[in-house]
Amino acid sequence: MKKLVGNLMYGQSGGPTAVINASAYGVISEARKNSEYIKEIYVMKHGIEGALNDDLIKISEKDNDNIELLKYTPGSAFGSVRHKLPDYKEDDSKYVRLLYMFKKYNIRYFLYNGGNDSMDTCAKIADYMNTIDYDVRIIGIPKTIDNDLPFTDHTPGFGSAAKFIANTIMEVNYDMLAYPNGKVTIVEIMGRHAGWLTASSALANLGGFGPDLIYLPEIPFSIEKFKNEVKEVYNAKKQCMVAVSEGVMNEDGVFISSSSGMKDAFGHFQLGGVASKLASTVANDLGISSRSVEFGSTQRAAAHLQSLTDVNEAIGVGEAAVQGVLNNKNDVMVIIKRISDNPYQIEYHYHGLRECANVEKKVPKSMINKEGNGVTQAFIDYALPLIQGENGNVFENGIQKFAKFK
Amino acid sequence: MKKLVGNLMYGQSGGPTAVINASAYGVISEARKNSEYIKEIYVMKHGIEGALNDDLIKISEKDNDNIELLKYTPGSAFGSVRHKLPDYKEDDSKYVRLLYMFKKYNIRYFLYNGGNDSMDTCAKIADYMNTIDYDVRIIGIPKTIDNDLPFTDHTPGFGSAAKFIANTIMEVNYDMLAYPNGKVTIVEIMGRHAGWLTASSALANLGGFGPDLIYLPEIPFSIEKFKNEVKEVYNAKKQCMVAVSEGVMNEDGVFISSSSGMKDAFGHFQLGGVASKLASTVANDLGISSRSVEFGSTQRAAAHLQSLTDVNEAIGVGEAAVQGVLNNKNDVMVIIKRISDNPYQIEYHYHGLRECANVEKKVPKSMINKEGNGVTQAFIDYALPLIQGENGNVFENGIQKFAKFK
Repeated sequence: MKKLVGNLMYGQSGGPTAVINASAYGVISEARKNSEYIKEIYVMKHGIEGALNDDLIKISEKDNDNIELLKYTPGSAFGSVRHKLPDYKEDDSKYVRLLYMFKKYNIRYFLYNGGNDSMDTCAKIADYMNTIDYDVRIIGIPKTIDNDLPFTDHTPGFGSAAKFIANTIMEVNYDMLAYPNGKVTIVEIMGRHAGWLTASSALANLGGFGPDLIYLPEIPFSIEKFKNEVKEVYNAKKQCMVAVSEGVMNEDGVFISSSSGMKDAFGHFQLGGVASKLASTVANDLGISSRSVEFGSTQRAAAHLQSLTDVNEAIGVGEAAVQGVLNNKNDVMVIIKRISDNPYQIEYHYHGLRECANVEKKVPKSMINKEGNGVTQAFIDYALPLIQGENGNVFENGIQKFAKFK
Repeated sequence: MKKLVGNLMYGQSGGPTAVINASAYGVISEARKNSEYIKEIYVMKHGIEGALNDDLIKISEKDNDNIELLKYTPGSAFGSVRHKLPDYKEDDSKYVRLLYMFKKYNIRYFLYNGGNDSMDTCAKIADYMNTIDYDVRIIGIPKTIDNDLPFTDHTPGFGSAAKFIANTIMEVNYDMLAYPNGKVTIVEIMGRHAGWLTASSALANLGGFGPDLIYLPEIPFSIEKFKNEVKEVYNAKKQCMVAVSEGVMNEDGVFISSSSGMKDAFGHFQLGGVASKLASTVANDLGISSRSVEFGSTQRAAAHLQSLTDVNEAIGVGEAAVQGVLNNKNDVMVIIKRISDNPYQIEYHYHGLRECANVEKKVPKSMINKEGNGVTQAFIDYALPLIQGENGNVFENGIQKFAKFK
């Protein structure tokens, strides 16, 4: 099959990561190397909404400084979106609009960077375009701190979030150890359905200051079991550090963090964090001093503590996507295949988009200890290579420099 | 006056900072350079309690690797404490015990590293020792992220916390900007009585992604004024980022964060954070999507984002303390005097301990804007030099290495 000649459209979608912009860097730099086939690069603002609203950025030479900064910039430099496309068989209006835009800008290569939902969007667009007499190659580029995309060994974004979590847990733990009087510290970590990020707190144990107890959403959470385990650790050490997923649920599938009649000082109902709830349980029921820490969006935005391995792979999946469409691959997502653990080696492959969109990869039983309150060596062996290396940040006057487009 | 010959005792007290251990490094390395006078170095475990309980670490050559790591280790590597000494005129039992320990270990140099309360402890010990026929030199070494010690231009620990806050605020803000639908993000920052740390969030504006509104504890907080100001920013930008001190109080001096009948899912009363309260006010009263972020202890423990200027000055005050006692200075605290802003230059001087112990330095009016919701250029000029330079961290397998004594 002959390579198409035309323009490329790229967009970001879903929750940002510390390295999604490194994938944009990979796409842009690889596309520029293939200017014989890819004439112009258009970036959608706020993902698919930018395409529908004709809100695009045409990348040019004057953007070069910002393109370089993409490797060090968190968030979504071009804007993200959560936009679910309808089934085109029921309502094709948005697809017709997209086709119009593809024709208007002569888009022959379409790359969409995101997680499960974004791959669903990407798959639907590929489906529709397959029914139409318009030649375009479509590839999804994986990204999510949650690491819950299937078929890929891991997702870009996970390694940097894991590195921030492990190192910050260590710092918070070391800080807690300063005092002679014991304390229970409970840290809440992102990942509503999959416990990969919460599990990565265990990497802090390699530095000697990790959590004592780890609760993943894969295991039903029992408050009584939790209290007993905290008490046991505390009695032995006079300290206890707990890492808990925001998404832990009881045996009936009810989130521990869900609101249940809690009101604040202004009389408003409030969604409580699971860590603060558990901390007050420890204080009230066990009579042990406790505090909670919520990492919140800092864990996905911590550009200043990116994993260099993660940055390089984020660039790599962007480059592989461009190489893929140029080789007439279509309707697939780039996946990372681990070739060996030691030395850590990967290859980029491709897998059908539809399958990638509809499966949520959870932490397997083999990586969770039998008590359900920690991880096994298999998890450490899996995760440790992903946090290797530091990406020297770009600081100016002590403040980071981020890309600014428009 | 002749230099004393004997041993040195050093301890850490109060809330940890990212660089208090760098001061320990400064003390130990400078003391070793003066081994003609300082024969042995003893470090108290958990500050003054270690001295009272005969729980000391004698520093030796085998500690050299850990001593080097002190420059990169957060928390209190030797343990901290909050221990208020009584007036010796009312109860001298602990002072008698201390004197016994000083004699037992031939302590001629006593250095205590901490904030306001620790300087009070240090002053009381100096007072007592002045009444006794025992020759010892006593100096306080300043440390606090809160930057509220008087007479010193700033305190070691502030610059690193300010750097972490400014850079993380920027990341969280950039992350928020990813979405087309507007949001209000409210970040809660440490500093119960003085707003230095909250003010330092303004440094993020130099990178282009700082807070729109900043509320310091120096200005009485009005919820109505807050709502109006958020609404105004949001209407103009469709986004709003707020930095608020944990210690803001209303006009009657009542903490906004104080508990007021809020219960959690387990029926326990809960101390609510001010950011989450304000976020629910924004959501409920203004109908704008909002979220809260609490940096918690991460902001004082973030060794991985130390300011190199701060690290060097933390070492500097430790060295100056040793030089001070060797020159027979006594009953003083090391202070930092700013000689010039541009280029930034400082000198180490000394100031009477008692005065340092009993004043809390607040952000002056000249550094707060007239609307009471931001800072002036005077604050930026003051704070910016303190966050300069990055202290290359020590990573092993992607995880930081911290000092471990015993």
